[in-house]
Amino acid sequence: MILAVTLNPALDVTHHVRNADWDGVNRPHQVLNRPGGKGLNVARVLSTLGANVRAIGLAGGLDGQAVCEGLAAAGVPATFTPIAGHTRRTFTVVDEAAGRVAAFNEPGPAISDGEYQLFLDLFGSVLTGCSVAVLSGSTPPGVPVTGYATLTSTAVAAGVPVILDADGPPLQHALAAGPAIVKPNLAELERAAGRSLRANGEPGGEPDLVAVAGAARELTAAGAGAAVVSLGPRGLLAVTLDGAWLATPAARAAGNPTGAGDAVVAGLALGLSRHGRWEERLRAGAALGAAAVAAPAAGDISLEDYYRELDKVQFAAIGE
Amino acid sequence: MILAVTLNPALDVTHHVRNADWDGVNRPHQVLNRPGGKGLNVARVLSTLGANVRAIGLAGGLDGQAVCEGLAAAGVPATFTPIAGHTRRTFTVVDEAAGRVAAFNEPGPAISDGEYQLFLDLFGSVLTGCSVAVLSGSTPPGVPVTGYATLTSTAVAAGVPVILDADGPPLQHALAAGPAIVKPNLAELERAAGRSLRANGEPGGEPDLVAVAGAARELTAAGAGAAVVSLGPRGLLAVTLDGAWLATPAARAAGNPTGAGDAVVAGLALGLSRHGRWEERLRAGAALGAAAVAAPAAGDISLEDYYRELDKVQFAAIGE
Repeated sequence: MILAVTLNPALDVTHHVRNADWDGVNRPHQVLNRPGGKGLNVARVLSTLGANVRAIGLAGGLDGQAVCEGLAAAGVPATFTPIAGHTRRTFTVVDEAAGRVAAFNEPGPAISDGEYQLFLDLFGSVLTGCSVAVLSGSTPPGVPVTGYATLTSTAVAAGVPVILDADGPPLQHALAAGPAIVKPNLAELERAAGRSLRANGEPGGEPDLVAVAGAARELTAAGAGAAVVSLGPRGLLAVTLDGAWLATPAARAAGNPTGAGDAVVAGLALGLSRHGRWEERLRAGAALGAAAVAAPAAGDISLEDYYRELDKVQFAAIGE
Repeated sequence: MILAVTLNPALDVTHHVRNADWDGVNRPHQVLNRPGGKGLNVARVLSTLGANVRAIGLAGGLDGQAVCEGLAAAGVPATFTPIAGHTRRTFTVVDEAAGRVAAFNEPGPAISDGEYQLFLDLFGSVLTGCSVAVLSGSTPPGVPVTGYATLTSTAVAAGVPVILDADGPPLQHALAAGPAIVKPNLAELERAAGRSLRANGEPGGEPDLVAVAGAARELTAAGAGAAVVSLGPRGLLAVTLDGAWLATPAARAAGNPTGAGDAVVAGLALGLSRHGRWEERLRAGAALGAAAVAAPAAGDISLEDYYRELDKVQFAAIGE
């Protein structure tokens, strides 16, 4: 079983509009409600792929209840430590006509010491029998900056490999605990490295792949087993003990990139749980990321899109 | 007691952001959740003013539950006919720095014949002892276009005067039933009249007050006791059996205009329930509208803002 941890879940609300008026009244033609937060997106993609997955986290309030009901409706087994605070929402406006996606992410609820301790107990109790533990996303207020380090140490001590998709200090603190894979995107890797990794040095520019590989290697030197960097349409750059590779999906049309990184993590988790080769893991991750962009909401993918993309992924070793 | 009817309530979610990125990720610095829909805004303003008010309507789902809990927390007595569908949300992004307000209004849930009939029973049963019935806002799918006409007839037959704030065919159908006051805004009055009422004939232009008064008189000729047209910063233009007036608030800073028309209706309802003179009603309505713009969310007003604005309203008879 793959365990997907979401400390800061959300009810993801997506409004599809045409040519939004940002200073007026809009009437969305499609409204989607989904359990969200990066770990729950990973769990939903894994469930769609037929994997044995369980989601755990912290949730409270009516929107926390909506998250639980949404997971049940999607057939994803989930257990949440109840909290007094209210689970947050994210509100995303997808304007296909204008080719723009705007996200408005509410802050997470404050977690008490007692609630955090209850969650640690839950995490420890469900590790037995897990093939992989995925730790994804932001941590809500009240969870210590060493939270992911603690969870990683607990899992590693129980013999369960960890995939960590985090940012900033929670990522930095967890590296020494030895996650099997970390999965930063380019901006997160730049924050970890403390420098630009763009070809022209400008924010938003194309990645300098040699610089990216160098920064990824710093994460493995600090304790991660491997670093897989998601580069949007450029695909995945992986630095591992076995080699370094680039997996690039086919060129694709505009869509909703929210959740694409979570689909990548789902592919990596499935490969890791099956002891698959790196080529298999990275091809699956790149194809799932591309399939996620084509889907209407984060955490949704169509298997048809996935298998079509899987055939088109370019895979190549890169120089060390 | 003033009865405030909301057939299509909403959970109003307001995100305050600074310089929103309409093609990126935003983190609102303030998130507000309020019971919404025009009739509930009216009820909340009346409650803030200390009036004896009761809200009724149709509600369902977790967001319907959030609406009920929000009214209870605000101390507004409310009764909703339960529905199988889910109460809608509205998302409003207020960008003070850019001076822009974008609203995303979800469609309402479908109402079954049985649910509508249960609501009509509720409405009939609570009319006794009411001084005014306020009917506000859109009607959800499944409520007939003659819904407001039916409610108006029922109230008038019970001796309860009606204030109707509606648009399009539901407004047109209800005029012959004799609402005491209708409160269109300029765009709604233009739709009712079937012609532009702007000085230059252009959409978004300044109102031609002579044309507005003429169109308002068509609503009274069709059966309304009076028509009060809300003109945004230009204030209120009223055409009544006793005369015609313009009530203009002081010039004001930018804010959130959502719910300003509902605050106007609350002022008119309070005056009507107290058999106040038109000058009193219109000054209260104009001042409440201005106070609503200064408030952070629809349905909120500060009494301090209201009383300050009340002193500044200009009131004048206009030629017939």
